[in-house]
Amino acid sequence: MSTTASEHTASSERPERKEPTYLFTEKYVADKSEIARHFIETRARLNANVDKANNFLVKRFYNIDHNAYLEGPLPAKTKELMGLVASACLRCDDCIFYHAIQAYRLGVNRAEQEESLNVALVVGGSIVIPHLRRAYELLEEIYG
Amino acid sequence: MSTTASEHTASSERPERKEPTYLFTEKYVADKSEIARHFIETRARLNANVDKANNFLVKRFYNIDHNAYLEGPLPAKTKELMGLVASACLRCDDCIFYHAIQAYRLGVNRAEQEESLNVALVVGGSIVIPHLRRAYELLEEIYG
Amino acid sequence: MSTTASEHTASSERPERKEPTYLFTEKYVADKSEIARHFIETRARLNANVDKANNFLVKRFYNIDHNAYLEGPLPAKTKELMGLVASACLRCDDCIFYHAIQAYRLGVNRAEQEESLNVALVVGGSIVIPHLRRAYELLEEIYG
Amino acid sequence: MSTTASEHTASSERPERKEPTYLFTEKYVADKSEIARHFIETRARLNANVDKANNFLVKRFYNIDHNAYLEGPLPAKTKELMGLVASACLRCDDCIFYHAIQAYRLGVNRAEQEESLNVALVVGGSIVIPHLRRAYELLEEIYG
Amino acid sequence: MSTTASEHTASSERPERKEPTYLFTEKYVADKSEIARHFIETRARLNANVDKANNFLVKRFYNIDHNAYLEGPLPAKTKELMGLVASACLRCDDCIFYHAIQAYRLGVNRAEQEESLNVALVVGGSIVIPHLRRAYELLEEIYG
Amino acid sequence: MSTTASEHTASSERPERKEPTYLFTEKYVADKSEIARHFIETRARLNANVDKANNFLVKRFYNIDHNAYLEGPLPAKTKELMGLVASACLRCDDCIFYHAIQAYRLGVNRAEQEESLNVALVVGGSIVIPHLRRAYELLEEIYG
Repeated sequence: MSTTASEHTASSERPERKEPTYLFTEKYVADKSEIARHFIETRARLNANVDKANNFLVKRFYNIDHNAYLEGPLPAKTKELMGLVASACLRCDDCIFYHAIQAYRLGVNRAEQEESLNVALVVGGSIVIPHLRRAYELLEEIYG
Repeated sequence: MSTTASEHTASSERPERKEPTYLFTEKYVADKSEIARHFIETRARLNANVDKANNFLVKRFYNIDHNAYLEGPLPAKTKELMGLVASACLRCDDCIFYHAIQAYRLGVNRAEQEESLNVALVVGGSIVIPHLRRAYELLEEIYG
Repeated sequence: MSTTASEHTASSERPERKEPTYLFTEKYVADKSEIARHFIETRARLNANVDKANNFLVKRFYNIDHNAYLEGPLPAKTKELMGLVASACLRCDDCIFYHAIQAYRLGVNRAEQEESLNVALVVGGSIVIPHLRRAYELLEEIYG
Repeated sequence: MSTTASEHTASSERPERKEPTYLFTEKYVADKSEIARHFIETRARLNANVDKANNFLVKRFYNIDHNAYLEGPLPAKTKELMGLVASACLRCDDCIFYHAIQAYRLGVNRAEQEESLNVALVVGGSIVIPHLRRAYELLEEIYG
Repeated sequence: MSTTASEHTASSERPERKEPTYLFTEKYVADKSEIARHFIETRARLNANVDKANNFLVKRFYNIDHNAYLEGPLPAKTKELMGLVASACLRCDDCIFYHAIQAYRLGVNRAEQEESLNVALVVGGSIVIPHLRRAYELLEEIYG
Repeated sequence: MSTTASEHTASSERPERKEPTYLFTEKYVADKSEIARHFIETRARLNANVDKANNFLVKRFYNIDHNAYLEGPLPAKTKELMGLVASACLRCDDCIFYHAIQAYRLGVNRAEQEESLNVALVVGGSIVIPHLRRAYELLEEIYG
C-alpha cells in the first residue's frame, strides 16, 4: 500500500547497524549438507541473473532486506530466527532454507531452530508440516 | 528472504521517475465519499503516529513503496490498478481503498476499476467477494 | 491462471443439479441472532449495489459460485460445511458467517459445525483462533 | 495466537473417537499410482527423520492433527474431504495428495473428490488451478 | 462465498469482448526458452487430463477465467500483467510463467514485465523474491 | 496435513517448561491503553463462550498453543516476539495485539517490538502496512 512520504532521511539519522559476525561461511555449510549446497548454488546463479538486469527498485528492495537482519536492538541471530518463523508461516521452502542456514552460520543451535519452527507450526497449522519435514531434513544434515 | 547485496547504486544509475499528475486532491475525493473520507483521515492520523516513531527501516520501506508507483515504463495509473489487483487478491480493505482512490485521482474510469477487480476476483476466488462488495460501495460513492 | 479452453459445453452435458431444501429462511436466522441479522442485512445492501453495476463477469462468477453448492454427488449441507472450512482457513469472517448460516438453514447441527471448524483450526493454525471465537459467538446465538 | 487456558481436561471428558476403517492400505494405493508411491515414500522417509528428533511439541501437534480426522459427529471420510478442500485452498500439493489418498482409502469415489475440489476452486480462485491439475493427475491414476 | 443470484443474463447484455491478437505463438516462445517449453508442455498434458474428466464446474471456471483476460475496457496486455502481479503476490510459479508468457506473446516488453514484478515485490514482500528470481530466469530466456 | 503417529509420549519425556514471569498484569496494560483494554475484554468474553462449548479438540489446541510460548531453549519473550512477527506476516490484528501485549508484559522494550515488526514488514511487504499502523498505535499507548 503506497504512501506519500518523501525521502527526507538525512544520513545523520541513520542508526548504527553493523554486519553480524558469522561463525561459518556458506561454503562450510554447503560442504556439510547437500540440501544447503543445492540451495546456495541455485540462489547464487539466479541472483547473478537478477543482478545483471540491474533493476533499480529490485536493488533497493534487496538492500532494505539486507538491512533488516543486521545487528541492532535485537541480535542478528534472533532476527534470522524470526525470518525463519515468517518463512515457515508463509510456507516458502527457499526462504526457510535461507534463514535456517543464516541462523546456523551465526551460531544458533538446533534446539533454538526447532523452537522457532514450533512457533511457526502452532501459528500456521498443519499446512506447515510438509515444510517442517523438509526443514528437519536440512537441520539433520547441518547439525547431524 | 534476505540477500547479501551491498548498496552500490550510484545516483547516476537511477532511472528518471517522476511524480504522476493527479486530477483530483485527496480532499476532493473525501468530499464526494464518506468511505474515502473515513479511510483518508484514519490513515493520516495513524501515519502521523508512525512518522513520530521515526523508525529508519519503516521510513525506507515507505519510500520504496512510494517509488514503486511513480511514472515509469508503465504509467502510474496502470500501476495503481495493479496495486488494486494485488490488494484485492491479498484481501486488504485499506489497501483496496487506497489504490482505488489513487487510481480515481489519476483519471481512471469506473469500468477500468471494475476490470481490475475482475482479474482479482477470478485469480483470488469467492473469498474476494466480501472485499469486492466493499470496493463497489466506494466506487459508487466516488463515481456515482 | 487463465486457460484457452473455449466454452463448448452443450446444455445436454450439464449434470442435474437441484437447489437444496432449506429448513429455515434467512429471516428466521436473523430473528434468532443479532450477528446473523447484521451480516445478512449488510450483505443484502452491498449485493444490491453490486447488482446495480451489472458487471457481466461478476454476475457470471456469482452464478458459478451459486452452482458450486447445489445438491450433487455430495449433499449441499456437506459442501456448505466445506465452504465453512475453506473460509475459516482463509480467515474471512463474512464468509464464515455466510456458510455457517447456510449450513444451519440446511439442518446441520452444532456438533457438525464445530467438527468442521476443528479441521480448519488444525489445518490453519492458531491464526484461525480469533475467527473461531467469532464463529462460536454466532453458533451460540443460532443454536443456543 | 496463544491462550492462557490450562489443560484441565479429565480423560472422562474425552469424547469417544475411533479410528476409521480403511478399505485400502497405503501400499495398495502406491501400487496403483506412481504419484502416490512417490508421495507416500518421501513422506515416510522425512517423517522418520522428524520422529528421530523427538521434539515434544511436534509430537503433540502430530497427535492433535491425527485426532481431528477420526470418526466423530462427522464421518472420517467427510473430514478427509474437508482436509482436501482446505489443502487446495491453501495450495499445498503434499497436503492435497495426502487427503485425496486418505479419502480414497476410506471409499470416497471420484465424483466426490471432484466436488470437493470444485468448492476449493470456487473459493480459492484460478490460483488453485495448477494444484487442481496435479490433483486430477493423481485421481486419474488411483481411479482410472 | 456463495450467493443466491440466479443466472438471468440475456446474451444481449453481454459486452463485446474479443480475443487479443498474439504477436507470437506458444511454440515460438517454447523454441526460445527451455523454461517456457517445459511449462507449456506440462500444462498441456495436465490440462488434457482435466478436460477428459469433463467436470462441468471446472469447465465453467476455465471459461470465466479465459474471459477475464479478453480485450475490454482495459487492454488484454494490461490484464495479463495484472495476472502476473496477482500470481507473484500469491506466489504461484506456474501462474507467473503463464502470465509472463502471455504478456510476451502480446508484445509487452521486458521493462514492463519488470515494473509489474516490482509492484508485486513491494506489495508482497521478500517472500516474493524466490519467485522473482525464477521469473527473471524466464525473462532472460525469452527476451535475452 | 494429518499424520498417523500415535500418542506414545510418556510424561517422562516431557521437557521441563515453565511459565514465564510477567512484569505486568493484563489489567495494568488495559489501564494504560484503550486499544489493549478493548482487545483484552473482547477476547475474554469470546473465550468464555468458547470454553462453555467445551470442545475437546479446541481445548487441546489451546493447550498446545499455550505451551509453545513457555520458557524453553528460547526465552518466552523471544517467542512472543516471534508470535508477533508471524501474526504481522499473516496479517491478523487480534494476534498482533495479543503478542505485542504479551511481549510488553514480559519486559520487551519498544525498540525490540519495532525491530520485530520490521522483519514482518520486509518479509510480508506493504500489505502489512495497515496492520503496522494499528500496531504502532498500540505501542504508542502502552509505551508512550
